[in-house]
Amino acid sequence: MTMDLHDYIASIPDFPQPGITFRDITPLLADTKAFGFAIHELAEYANEKGATKIVAPESRGFLLGTPMALEMGVGFVPARKPGKLPRKTISESYTLEYGSATLELNADAIEPGDKVVVVDDLLATGGTIAATNKLIERLGGEVVGLAFLIELTELQGRQVLKDYDIRALLTYEGE
Amino acid sequence: MTMDLHDYIASIPDFPQPGITFRDITPLLADTKAFGFAIHELAEYANEKGATKIVAPESRGFLLGTPMALEMGVGFVPARKPGKLPRKTISESYTLEYGSATLELNADAIEPGDKVVVVDDLLATGGTIAATNKLIERLGGEVVGLAFLIELTELQGRQVLKDYDIRALLTYEGE
Repeated sequence: MTMDLHDYIASIPDFPQPGITFRDITPLLADTKAFGFAIHELAEYANEKGATKIVAPESRGFLLGTPMALEMGVGFVPARKPGKLPRKTISESYTLEYGSATLELNADAIEPGDKVVVVDDLLATGGTIAATNKLIERLGGEVVGLAFLIELTELQGRQVLKDYDIRALLTYEGE
Repeated sequence: MTMDLHDYIASIPDFPQPGITFRDITPLLADTKAFGFAIHELAEYANEKGATKIVAPESRGFLLGTPMALEMGVGFVPARKPGKLPRKTISESYTLEYGSATLELNADAIEPGDKVVVVDDLLATGGTIAATNKLIERLGGEVVGLAFLIELTELQGRQVLKDYDIRALLTYEGE
């Protein structure tokens, strides 16, 4: 089966601010055939890379990460905003366009030798994913690939993540 | 297959504040057999209730809602915090122990006649789920059931949600 997933992404001009076009994945989530196809493609990529765990950042990454991990038969690890994980964690801060953000991972979530694919809905500037990769690597894991539904090529996240293998199911050049 | 899912929940005393025991689902997410079993049980419940859509609130509900919806072959609808959904939405505010919170749903996410199961990781006071139910009902949908991994019976969320059918895979009485 093949289908054009672009048909299931809504493009919203000037959201959240003027000049930005927001790519909304809710029509894809609402269509079980298209969503199942997308998850299958992402899981197949992660299997090809030999992933033994899937990590996804809060919160849209969660929508993709758990069905991928279950289809593959591997464990799922959430990367969360500060204060959400109650046990021992490690954290990484990163800069955003305005201000900064922090992500945390359970300190026992990754073991040396784990091969990890990180998944998120959207590759934009790459900051969130770069921080997630650092957390995994600090725990001794190897990031064997990065999987996205959508890549916004204009924002050049691939430059920030140039040391990693990347698969995006859909690309958008700009507005 | 049957298994005791309690074995995959970590209980953390005095988090996020003294006197509260936090039930941490990350060990379940990390074990693909146990997690797959839990999703299968939740999906089977939603199928028995005749659900045509699955709705889950941000963000831990997302971890369960998408694999459930895909296993069932029905659409998934996220209930999100304010400002996250770029198209036309409806919103409901609800009170928390300290202060209040708001959830939004896409205005076109539910159609009259839709039969919806709402899923979240934890049933505590029931406030988040009551607000989610109202959003679904305002759009003409019928909430045919509520599915949880865990119910904290001491907090009496069932009283707040007494008009609804509820399935929780695990219950904890108190500390």
